[in-house]
Amino acid sequence: MSTNTETTAATIRLSRRWHYAREQAISFLMQQAVENPDVISLAAGLVDSQSLPVAETRTALAEIFEDESRARQALQYGTTPGAEDVRLAVLDHFARQERCPTKDLGIDAGQLVLTTGSQQLLSIVCEILLDEGDICLVAGPTYFVFLGNLNGVGAEAVSVPADENGMLTGALDNTLAELDRAGQLDRVKMIYAVSYYDNPSGTSLSPERRREIVEIARRWSRRQRIFVLEDAAYRELRYDGPLLESIWSCDESRQHVIYTQTYSKTYSPGLRVGFGVVPRELVGPICDRKGNEDFGSANLNQRLIACVLRNGLYDKHVEDVQTAYRRKRNAMLAAAEEHFSKLAGVTWVHPHGGLYVWMSLPEQIHTGFNSPLFDRAVHHEGVMYVPGELFYAGERAERPAHQMRLSYGVQTPDGIREGIARLARAVKSVI
Amino acid sequence: MSTNTETTAATIRLSRRWHYAREQAISFLMQQAVENPDVISLAAGLVDSQSLPVAETRTALAEIFEDESRARQALQYGTTPGAEDVRLAVLDHFARQERCPTKDLGIDAGQLVLTTGSQQLLSIVCEILLDEGDICLVAGPTYFVFLGNLNGVGAEAVSVPADENGMLTGALDNTLAELDRAGQLDRVKMIYAVSYYDNPSGTSLSPERRREIVEIARRWSRRQRIFVLEDAAYRELRYDGPLLESIWSCDESRQHVIYTQTYSKTYSPGLRVGFGVVPRELVGPICDRKGNEDFGSANLNQRLIACVLRNGLYDKHVEDVQTAYRRKRNAMLAAAEEHFSKLAGVTWVHPHGGLYVWMSLPEQIHTGFNSPLFDRAVHHEGVMYVPGELFYAGERAERPAHQMRLSYGVQTPDGIREGIARLARAVKSVI
Repeated sequence: MSTNTETTAATIRLSRRWHYAREQAISFLMQQAVENPDVISLAAGLVDSQSLPVAETRTALAEIFEDESRARQALQYGTTPGAEDVRLAVLDHFARQERCPTKDLGIDAGQLVLTTGSQQLLSIVCEILLDEGDICLVAGPTYFVFLGNLNGVGAEAVSVPADENGMLTGALDNTLAELDRAGQLDRVKMIYAVSYYDNPSGTSLSPERRREIVEIARRWSRRQRIFVLEDAAYRELRYDGPLLESIWSCDESRQHVIYTQTYSKTYSPGLRVGFGVVPRELVGPICDRKGNEDFGSANLNQRLIACVLRNGLYDKHVEDVQTAYRRKRNAMLAAAEEHFSKLAGVTWVHPHGGLYVWMSLPEQIHTGFNSPLFDRAVHHEGVMYVPGELFYAGERAERPAHQMRLSYGVQTPDGIREGIARLARAVKSVI
Repeated sequence: MSTNTETTAATIRLSRRWHYAREQAISFLMQQAVENPDVISLAAGLVDSQSLPVAETRTALAEIFEDESRARQALQYGTTPGAEDVRLAVLDHFARQERCPTKDLGIDAGQLVLTTGSQQLLSIVCEILLDEGDICLVAGPTYFVFLGNLNGVGAEAVSVPADENGMLTGALDNTLAELDRAGQLDRVKMIYAVSYYDNPSGTSLSPERRREIVEIARRWSRRQRIFVLEDAAYRELRYDGPLLESIWSCDESRQHVIYTQTYSKTYSPGLRVGFGVVPRELVGPICDRKGNEDFGSANLNQRLIACVLRNGLYDKHVEDVQTAYRRKRNAMLAAAEEHFSKLAGVTWVHPHGGLYVWMSLPEQIHTGFNSPLFDRAVHHEGVMYVPGELFYAGERAERPAHQMRLSYGVQTPDGIREGIARLARAVKSVI
């Protein structure tokens, strides 16, 4: 028996994979928020607390717990992909969004997997498909947490330029042709796209590009299948603009698109319920992996979501949420117009949904953590944003460094207006 | 635009890791259960449905939802390791089990991470610590899902023999000495032990061996730290026998033991709340990995657990669960005595807690999926068990093939008696 407390211990040798996954950006942002509590955060990707569905959830829980056997079922294990009756309710919800009867979708509930938010599906897809050195094509900019997933498995994210209609499909095709000429096509496994109101850019892929991306994935699937990973996290956070068909719907073969969506943005992130609609051959591998990770996400939460999907409270709540965020989006755009429109070289995207306004400053104005602007904004003006460079793949020195992601999710309209005014003062001070 | 539905699609190339993780055993068992609905399953590791805490959960949910701001907090994102106030409640619970005031534990809530069951912690620990070819020492037999986690990262499980007091520490020390002589010590990262009422063997490590395992890990940590991963999933499912100190408590340095526990067995698996108490230097790597996987498990469920821990409903419920399982354990042991005691060469372990009775048949009687016994049991007698060979590491041909894990978790005492009677008939028919 050891009686002395050791003063030193042997070195810890962490896995190679852990070293890939290491990413301090989020921690740094959270630390800044904690250290500067009076700062107005336009950085946090959280949802609006005031519109969380307290009454709806109370009703759904009462419905589940009024019946002993229903309550017991919710407190017992589900299955790894989620209980079948829950998956049927989610499939019906998916069909409503597709404006297609469930029976005509061309898939069944066996191709639907419930996960801990959609994030877990993104993570699992990387685990089962990507080896070290494999390539995933992404828009520049793209969702930075997903870049962390790619890093985490040692895969390479290759950026494809994007405009206000999303990833440029001509550039996507050219990139694949270049990779082919370089003998690298075998490394390409996936194309990732946030298809609705992108995080961070706020843009949506045009209908033509949705079809083209599927066609390109199909055409370049020579030696192995290239999947399109469609991240539809913000699909239902639509405030105006056209109703857009999913990339998934453009893939009549049902073999190329992996579709993910979450109830975190439209209902409650505290429940962590998301789902994937996946090609049949991937169901087994995804469930094997998920079985190893957790044997299935919380059954109670999945049943709660199924309950509000069935009794109509979910659809009603989504309308409330849309109204609340539309007001906030309008507040941010109006404030941007008021404070930034006279600044030469400052532009921003008008989003039709989602939670983000993507702003570009003149190229010489850097926005990174070590920039004079970030310092000025956080420590003098009391406002925080996410530096745009975090959303690009590749070497940091080569990434655009003059952009910012501004979120209107958390703040009130007044907070948003004040935040944008502060940010404008910070920008003016360094321009 | 593609107008034709494809009839064939390119081959899918899954990751190397996925191929490691592939494991059909569970699927095969579940399929057997579905195809043979009249079978009495002594295989399922589920918990007893009748004792699930419906009333307790109803009360806790009412407490959370009676206050708007408390409800909103539960429906919002938590943080990756779980909200701090929840972690404090769990730390107090851990301290009560350690029979030590929280302030004297030598750790704080910062070293506690909440996960999706304890399974997610086991999985994450493998991800952050183990590279392909690294070694984890395990008891033979051991928890087979954890063997899947080791396979999943390409690590090697090296078996150490065990007896009724758990892993043989002399053999553990010898195995390490052999690995050292073979120049393989650098590959050893971890020793895994289910410390209370082991799954599958039902045994608990003796107090001496708990201390020795920590001492051995410390002593062999020459080039890198060797961790002890203590899986205390069944700790509170104690029916009689001594109160055992944790392996964690034997590590005064707080640097070698990673402790995991779950609320799935004692409260509800449908909530998926587990936790780890980990050495300080591992907190960051674990949270980085968990951030990539899901940004944190369901906040509502964690707050629900914190609520029943604080208001005393949890402790009360644990007593009820102990009473229910004690009765079932007694039923299984009595039935085994009645039906198996006259069969030469059949032995079983008397567990003081947990959910399993581990039974050994004469060596020539194989129990595997393809054995005459399994066929006889499932298709003629209508009873199912888990073949013992699944619980061993290494080549299948070299594993003991004459054992069975019998669970008393799901069935009623009558179902258990009938299941054991059927199993005895099946065994007699092949002996």
